[in-house]
Order: sequence, then C-alpha cells, then structure tokens
Amino acid sequence: MASASRAATPLLKDELDIVIPTIRNLDFLEMWRPFFQPYHLIIVQDGDPNKTIRVPEGFDYELYNRNDINRMLGPKASCISFKDSACRCFGYMVSKKKYIYTIDDDCFVAKDPSGKDINALEQHIKNLLSPSTPFFFNTLYDPYRDGADFVRGYPFSLREGVPTAVSHGLWLNIPDYDAPTQLVKPLERNTRYVDAILTIPKGTLFPMCGMNLAFDRELIGPAMYFGLMGDGQPIGRYDDMWAGWCTKVITDHLGLGVKTGLPYIWHSKASNPFVNLKKEYNGIFWQEELIPFFQSVSMPKEATTVQKCYLELAKQVRAKLGKVDGYFNKLADSMVTWIEAWDELNPPKGGVATANGPPKK
Amino acid sequence: MASASRAATPLLKDELDIVIPTIRNLDFLEMWRPFFQPYHLIIVQDGDPNKTIRVPEGFDYELYNRNDINRMLGPKASCISFKDSACRCFGYMVSKKKYIYTIDDDCFVAKDPSGKDINALEQHIKNLLSPSTPFFFNTLYDPYRDGADFVRGYPFSLREGVPTAVSHGLWLNIPDYDAPTQLVKPLERNTRYVDAILTIPKGTLFPMCGMNLAFDRELIGPAMYFGLMGDGQPIGRYDDMWAGWCTKVITDHLGLGVKTGLPYIWHSKASNPFVNLKKEYNGIFWQEELIPFFQSVSMPKEATTVQKCYLELAKQVRAKLGKVDGYFNKLADSMVTWIEAWDELNPPKGGVATANGPPKK
Repeated sequence: MASASRAATPLLKDELDIVIPTIRNLDFLEMWRPFFQPYHLIIVQDGDPNKTIRVPEGFDYELYNRNDINRMLGPKASCISFKDSACRCFGYMVSKKKYIYTIDDDCFVAKDPSGKDINALEQHIKNLLSPSTPFFFNTLYDPYRDGADFVRGYPFSLREGVPTAVSHGLWLNIPDYDAPTQLVKPLERNTRYVDAILTIPKGTLFPMCGMNLAFDRELIGPAMYFGLMGDGQPIGRYDDMWAGWCTKVITDHLGLGVKTGLPYIWHSKASNPFVNLKKEYNGIFWQEELIPFFQSVSMPKEATTVQKCYLELAKQVRAKLGKVDGYFNKLADSMVTWIEAWDELNPPKGGVATANGPPKK
Repeated sequence: MASASRAATPLLKDELDIVIPTIRNLDFLEMWRPFFQPYHLIIVQDGDPNKTIRVPEGFDYELYNRNDINRMLGPKASCISFKDSACRCFGYMVSKKKYIYTIDDDCFVAKDPSGKDINALEQHIKNLLSPSTPFFFNTLYDPYRDGADFVRGYPFSLREGVPTAVSHGLWLNIPDYDAPTQLVKPLERNTRYVDAILTIPKGTLFPMCGMNLAFDRELIGPAMYFGLMGDGQPIGRYDDMWAGWCTKVITDHLGLGVKTGLPYIWHSKASNPFVNLKKEYNGIFWQEELIPFFQSVSMPKEATTVQKCYLELAKQVRAKLGKVDGYFNKLADSMVTWIEAWDELNPPKGGVATANGPPKK
C-alpha cells in the first residue's frame, strides 16, 4: 500500500446516505440488512405516488414520491425525471451527507471467490477515502491497496494522487449490456471476478452505470444529474451514462479522480430487451455524437466549482448538441434548473444571508 | 466475446521469435520448454562475449554477443547498449518475424488461481491477435474475451477496435519496483492475480516493463528501441520505460493499441536495490521532466510510419530534453542511428534494389 493512502475506517452514519430509486421487493433490503442498516436510506419513489413502498422494520429512511418532489421544488421539479429510475438524483440533492451510495433494487449481495459475502458499501468507502491516480497509469492497478504500490517508472511527484470523487462498482451475473447486445447474447453472464480497482485516466470517458455507484457529494454532487428520461422524453437508460460523461469531464478539469472495479454486486435479473430497445434507440444513435462532443469539451479557467463547470457544460450542450435534436435544448434548460434547485436546497456554506438573521458561518 | 475478435490460434514458428537478453541459468529454459520449444529463440548476450551461454538441447536458437553486434552494425553498433539488458533490442532488429516475445531469465512459469501452469506466450498471442479499444474505456475490461463484451453506453462505431501493437504482461511474486520502493518494502510480494486485460487509453502513458512483453514487430518494431543504458552511460533500468513512452505516443498517433494485464509470469528474484539505486538515481530525477515531455509530444501529420514518428521524436528529444542533461543529445543521436540500422537490416519490402539483382517484391 503506497504511503499516501488514508486509513479506510467505516464511515459514521452522518457521513453517508444510501439512495435507492425505488424498492419493488422486500428481499432486497433484507439481504442488505447487515451492511445497510447502520446507514440512513433515501428512497425516491419512481412512478405512481399512490403506491406504497414497504420498508422492513429496523431501517432508518426517508421516502419521497412525486408529490413530495413537486411540493419541494415547485416549478423546478420539471428537472426531475418521472417514471424512470433517473429520479434517484433527487435523493442526491436532498441528502446533507458527504458521501452517497446508490444501488438498484435488483442488485443483491455478491460473493467473492472465497465464497464470502461482499460488503460493497465498505469497498466503495475504501475507494473514496484513498486517492486516485488519473495522470499516469499504474500497471499493478490501485497502488493504495494492501500488497500493491507504484511500479518502477512511476513519477514520484504523482504518487500523492488526487482526491477520489467517484467509485464505480461492477456486477456479477447479468452484465450491464444495451438492448442489442442483450438480444444477441441473452444467455451471457458475467462470472469473472476481477480483483482490481483502477483510476480511469484523465481525458478518457467511460460508461458509468448507476446500479452500484458511490461518490463524494461535496466534491462532485452537482454534476450527478441523471438528466431527463422516462415519461414524456424520447430516451431512457442513458441517465447514468449522461451523468458519467458530465462528471468525468468535470473531474478531469477540477483535478479529481474516478475509480472503477471492485466492489461487485449480484445483478439478479435482466430487464426486458424489447422495452429497453424502445428506450435506448435514440440514445444509441445520439451517443455517436455525444462522445465526440464530450471528448472535445474544454472548460474555461473561471470554471472553478462544480456548479460553474456544470452551467458551462449546459451552455455547450445547447450550442453544440441542440442541432442533433431539440431534446438537447430541453436537457440544457433542465441542467440549469437542476443547479438552481441544488443551490436552493444546498445553500453555500458560510455566505448566504437567511431570513432569520445574519449569514451562518 | 465481441464479434470483432479474431480467433487466437497458436502462431506458427515463422511468425514469432522469442528474444532473451541473456541466460544465466539453465533452469530458465527447462522450465519454459513446453511452451518455448516450438519457437525460435534469439539470445542477445549481455556483457563479456568470451563467456559461454549454454542452451539446453532441443531448442532452436541463434545467439549474438558483442562481437557479432559490432561486426554486423559497424559504427552503428554504438546505439546498442553494452553490459545492460537493454541490448535485447538488437534481437528485435535482427528478427524477421511478425511478432516478438521478450522475457527475462529470472522469470519463471506462474500458476493461475486453479494451480495450472500459465502459458504466457499463448496469452500474449491472444492479446495481440484481438483488437484494442483506446478511445473509450470498457468497464468489463477486454470486450473481446470469452464471456465479456462492450457494456451499455459504449459507442457502436468504436466497437471494431484498432490493431493491437503491444501486449504488456505482469509478474507475480517480486513486483517491478524501483530501488527506493524496494528498499522501503523489501518483503512485499505480488500475490494478487487480477484476471483482466485492458487497453491503456489513448493519451495515457504507462510504465512499460520489459520482463514479460510481446509486440507486433511489423506494426511498432522500430519504436522498441531500449535506449543507451549500462556501460559508459549515466543511467540504467530505464531501457524499457523509455521504449514504452516512445511506443505509446507513437501508437496513439498511428491509431494502434497497447494492452496490459494477463499473462503473469513468476518473477523469481529481486535485483539488488543498492545496485539499482545507483543505476536509477538519474532516471528518478529525469523522469519528472520526461513525463511532461512525452505528455506534450505532438506528431505532425506527415509522420505516417513508425520510422518517421521515431525520427520526429528524436528531434523533439534533442530540442526539449537536451537542456535537462547532455545525455539526451547523445540519446537523440542514438535514436537516429537505431532507425538507420533498423532500415539497413530491414529494407522496405518491395522497393529497394539489392546487390544481387532487381528489387524483391
């Protein structure tokens, strides 16, 4: 373990929230009980607010449905997707914690090669608490893990690393494939446990999946907008991808890190490929334009905060992607609304006067 | 396995050479016999040409010592290091095969987690025969492996990949650490078998180790110059690093791929850290300048072949690193000499008249 590593002690309850887009079965929380019960859950109910989500006893949680979102955000609620798991990002906004872990309700506890249950949350915390190395590739993967270090030829000036903003975990069993690949390979299962965590290098984009994802809300939260998907939108299943591309160009600009690899969860069931194809087909087409766009995004020096970066990105989305489809103008508007709503619910510390008196410092 | 993958059939003897810088013990070849005997070996004897290297029976090999190098290259022999394993690159030059595998004589056959002997050469061949994906990161690692593919969000236009020029393998047991890390962690062993192969993204540099390395000589051979190290030089143990940095900027420019990960070999013994420190100390200092230099190298459009790229790089080394130390002017000269010697031993196909008659087509 390289010396720049900080001890990865379990976080206290007031440091992390678990955000779940919806819970369709009770097994999910029962299975995760040993690992999740010490933390606070934020459940963002996807779809009909009149349905009841049952949470087993013993969990500390808050639940928001569409009525709550509309009431809390007013007209700005338009930026939160409806009837799509993209609504989960509302949970990122209402949390007041430093770290977020988000997981889908069809993701169960996986086993490591020795047969032991994997505490995914603990591994994410380790990933987030140790630095990232985006400027140079380490061939032995994460140099901050036990038994590993920087190899010969790794510049010493880069060994301190940079703060880690995102920890992207993977999935055993059902892989996260798009509809065409699902259709072509319906029986493919991911059985390969790759015992690695690595930093995605600066300047490299990746497909960020929201199934098993943790991030530092203070470092990157306002960039974790899951876009406009689902009801009334021409696209679905690109919520996490969109957030990932936006996040990556912003972490690159701000000198933060993104890790991928461990921990694994057990992805229990494949979504319907025919339904997925309907949601995805525009995205499959548009992503051919989106990737070159994100690869060429350049942030001005003045973009020194995540919010400033994100508003700049919204401007560039409008200018360059509006011609791909009118949807991107609407998305750019929503990106701005998202930041306004974020700042309303998360007033800058120590600066803004409140109705009750002088600025709180 | 993504459909763009080609079948990784074992190569024929006339397609691959194994280059070994020197052989100090007979165990080495005995251990590798089941895997190496079908191929041709090129042994480049490091140091005193009067010493005899004994090769066990049954191996097909050619052996070059310093006298041979001097005789074959004349004054151009100055570009080949003496008393340093960097001399191995002479073997790349005299080979006439499409692929090269190079390995150190303290690298033995490793076992996979199931206890089976790893045929490192076979895995390198698989890596080289399947494409690379340098333009976008695939979170399930090599999409061309059995049981893997491109994940959701991976642009379809990029799924064909690009030809793979380099396959960089890893080491179990003794990790490839620099002298300071060896001194600080003398007991650290690499016991983690990471079951992954991945493409190093475009624009990202990595520390290429020459212990267990394969490459496509036709695609990238002339960039695999291991520099001026050892006898009479102010630096050692940066031969493979230098080749790796040069190779990576050239593969990036030419649209070729570099993979790292599997296969593992068993690195049997650590070299002396005190001796290593003496060889490395200039390199440790200089690499702080070298990395920013290589990160900012830009190739002109006219650099359409490896040779042209390499000569351009030599020019930039002289212009920008000459002021770091006079050594780099000498190295730039040698880079040019290396290309001249390479072209002399490897005349362009179908173009150059020979003393014996018309051009061979």
